[in-house]
Amino acid sequence: MSLMDVALRRGFFYPSSEVYGGSAGFYDFGHLGVLLKRKFENTWRKYFLGLDQNFVEIETCTIMPKAVFEGSGHLKSFNDPLTECGTCHVRHKADLLLEEHDVEAEGLTAEEMSTLLKEKSVKCPRCGGELSEVRWFNMMFELDVGAAESGEKAYLRPETAQGSYMSFKRMHEVLRNQIPMGLAIIGRVYRNEISPRQGFYRLRELSQAELQIFFDPDTLDEHPCYDSVKDQIMRIYAVGDRDKEVREIPLEQVEAPRFYQYYMAKVQDFYVKVLKVPPHLFRFRELSEEERAFYNKIHWDMEIFTESLGGFKEAGGIHYRTDHDLSGHQKASGEKMEINVEGKKFVPHVLELSFGVDRNVLMLMDLAYTEEPERVVLKLPSVVAPYTVAVFPLVSKDGLVELSYDIYLNLKKDFDVFFDEKGSIGKRYRRQDEIGTPFCVTVDYQTLEDGTVTVRERDSMEQTRFQKEKVADTLRKAY
Amino acid sequence: MSLMDVALRRGFFYPSSEVYGGSAGFYDFGHLGVLLKRKFENTWRKYFLGLDQNFVEIETCTIMPKAVFEGSGHLKSFNDPLTECGTCHVRHKADLLLEEHDVEAEGLTAEEMSTLLKEKSVKCPRCGGELSEVRWFNMMFELDVGAAESGEKAYLRPETAQGSYMSFKRMHEVLRNQIPMGLAIIGRVYRNEISPRQGFYRLRELSQAELQIFFDPDTLDEHPCYDSVKDQIMRIYAVGDRDKEVREIPLEQVEAPRFYQYYMAKVQDFYVKVLKVPPHLFRFRELSEEERAFYNKIHWDMEIFTESLGGFKEAGGIHYRTDHDLSGHQKASGEKMEINVEGKKFVPHVLELSFGVDRNVLMLMDLAYTEEPERVVLKLPSVVAPYTVAVFPLVSKDGLVELSYDIYLNLKKDFDVFFDEKGSIGKRYRRQDEIGTPFCVTVDYQTLEDGTVTVRERDSMEQTRFQKEKVADTLRKAY
Repeated sequence: MSLMDVALRRGFFYPSSEVYGGSAGFYDFGHLGVLLKRKFENTWRKYFLGLDQNFVEIETCTIMPKAVFEGSGHLKSFNDPLTECGTCHVRHKADLLLEEHDVEAEGLTAEEMSTLLKEKSVKCPRCGGELSEVRWFNMMFELDVGAAESGEKAYLRPETAQGSYMSFKRMHEVLRNQIPMGLAIIGRVYRNEISPRQGFYRLRELSQAELQIFFDPDTLDEHPCYDSVKDQIMRIYAVGDRDKEVREIPLEQVEAPRFYQYYMAKVQDFYVKVLKVPPHLFRFRELSEEERAFYNKIHWDMEIFTESLGGFKEAGGIHYRTDHDLSGHQKASGEKMEINVEGKKFVPHVLELSFGVDRNVLMLMDLAYTEEPERVVLKLPSVVAPYTVAVFPLVSKDGLVELSYDIYLNLKKDFDVFFDEKGSIGKRYRRQDEIGTPFCVTVDYQTLEDGTVTVRERDSMEQTRFQKEKVADTLRKAY
Repeated sequence: MSLMDVALRRGFFYPSSEVYGGSAGFYDFGHLGVLLKRKFENTWRKYFLGLDQNFVEIETCTIMPKAVFEGSGHLKSFNDPLTECGTCHVRHKADLLLEEHDVEAEGLTAEEMSTLLKEKSVKCPRCGGELSEVRWFNMMFELDVGAAESGEKAYLRPETAQGSYMSFKRMHEVLRNQIPMGLAIIGRVYRNEISPRQGFYRLRELSQAELQIFFDPDTLDEHPCYDSVKDQIMRIYAVGDRDKEVREIPLEQVEAPRFYQYYMAKVQDFYVKVLKVPPHLFRFRELSEEERAFYNKIHWDMEIFTESLGGFKEAGGIHYRTDHDLSGHQKASGEKMEINVEGKKFVPHVLELSFGVDRNVLMLMDLAYTEEPERVVLKLPSVVAPYTVAVFPLVSKDGLVELSYDIYLNLKKDFDVFFDEKGSIGKRYRRQDEIGTPFCVTVDYQTLEDGTVTVRERDSMEQTRFQKEKVADTLRKAY
């Protein structure tokens, strides 16, 4: 028994197009996975759009013209180092191969990687063949819009962010020229990974939830609510901390500008307070200049520790992208990206909060997965549990089914509810434990007499009787 | 002033990547468009998944391997007839050109269209040049997964349906082998239209909400709840009714099997009762054998009449796809698609309910758009209005802003709310009318005295005073 086994068997996620053998890096969500994913997205939306009245959500196309990625720099710089086996012709990521041989490859040139592969005598991990020189491979999916011969080249977006930059000018006008302004996008992005070997963690088609905050660079070291967060204790793993422990320090001691710090505090709260990630399994990891993406000036990743992924892994990042993108698009398109705030003209800078939805879902499931002697239980926080409650008639006779079904329909107005009348009550509890349902309501003969039902809590397995009319309120309070 | 003007200026939708001049067939949603679109999707989800306990939602990849579309027949048959101008080299859809010359082109071969273009002396509508012979053009976007040279060909899905067919076997097991089973997908699909000229109505990247119902073909002429709908009056425009009026007849007189009829009734209710489409602007249009897609045996489209689209236009369709897809995939993959129900083995048949999300959003906005002498008002039903309520302080002093903001925060727990303190009250009402907000709450000096606020209703413009604590309940009842 394992998390992947539960995920497959119960319909959280499974390989895409598996009838035809699937395709590496592509997964589909079953009905429980969709519920969990959507609840994560709704929780994210409610929390981050709630941080400022001028933060809104937009939804933009996933196919974007070539010009966008010339302006953003992705065509030139969004590359992976590729090496090919001369014998079996399988392609590999050169940096991954080097890291498997304990060589830190971040920031190296193709030539340096080629040399190191030879020095370390690295061979094809599949067949042992000789590997080719390393060359850069662009990770965007290319396609033709219109008939191929005359069509325009376009790309599937590798991040949602460019949609927000394309929408910046119009939305700034629509939102009556306020600054800061936040544009959030939750949606699919695409990365043509050379050899996705980490299952559900590294995908070729994935969902991101990203918020681009456009602000005046002169206010980089301030935030109106800074005082409310400055003493918050942060879990920090800076560039200088490598091979040391995570440090717990007050926010104001973190080496980052205050506008940046403010959102670090809010992001940590999102994980620890809203998603109930145990604090000791969360940290902010600072990325060095070599590790950062080409567009970032300050970059800390949110990392979560899970056993199955083998340590702290990236769940998202906070990226100070400066005016890299807006100025790049201004230069490439000739469209002014400058705004005018009370006579002062400037191109706004951007702070990006970026989250990988699928890997957050995976990590939350991993943290929740618990094997106990007599059951497997997914201890998901209520805000993201696929079903909030299940309703069972004790037996399928004497009117208990009808009575249960009424309770089910009534709860359905406010919650995701599952109805189950099959198998022993113990078995039905186990089925719900395994998919993380926080509450089970059982209707029995006493219900016929006094209108009370049993509410059983997932983690403690404690059972309490309530009047059936009080169940919805009880769940709402526990929620 | 027009709907498109409001859509652009207020942030419903706008051309994608417009900084670079946009790209035909691609639109983005601004913050109001996202709210409207998401509410349409949630309304759809709640209604259609509520029709059967065994209907669930899944979410599958938009990139699918070539083998899937060989099995489904899309590689062979999902084509548009293309003709090219010999002078300016612009490509055109031959069937559209013929229809503009009053020739019905549905079902013709490429040769027949070539001949007709010549007979009617049709020239390039752009430059008047000679047109080439007609050839078929596959409308799927093709891409390479992995490094191009050795990579596998894949396609962006042209419909969500194939994701459900790929998931059928696993989900049938996960859902404990029940039949009928419904798999719904709401998500993006892609069609490489040759010349998208109808703005937001015909898109290259669009969203669909589709439900695939898998059932035993022996039960095609029955539904357990048939009696509850058989007398419902349906608005019907059958193949035999061409050039006649829409007929209003009881469901049981519609020429379709009962399982099919049942869902026709439910779909009509969705439009008329849930989305409040005026009945006389809705109809079911039957498609002839020539008009139907290659996989459909029975096909009625839902059509909505709007002025701006120039008549009744397709909003979606109900498609009896038989075992076309499952058997196609069984043959192509070698995987058995048969199920075993109490000893009876069969490949299920599929009834598909298919809705174009973007065009439904567009049509609902079009129906709602009303120019009155002194205002423009978007009379959207509350279930899809972007904001349900706006809160205004009458003036920005004497504590009215703080009091209003408290009311705003309180309402925000249950509704999408907009807060506005800028401009005259009249102007603020107009701004909300234009985007379809059903209610405006105004906080004035009387609020300070007796705790009452004014609730103003959008369509009637009537104003009523309520205790501020009663506003949420009042809205919930009107909702």
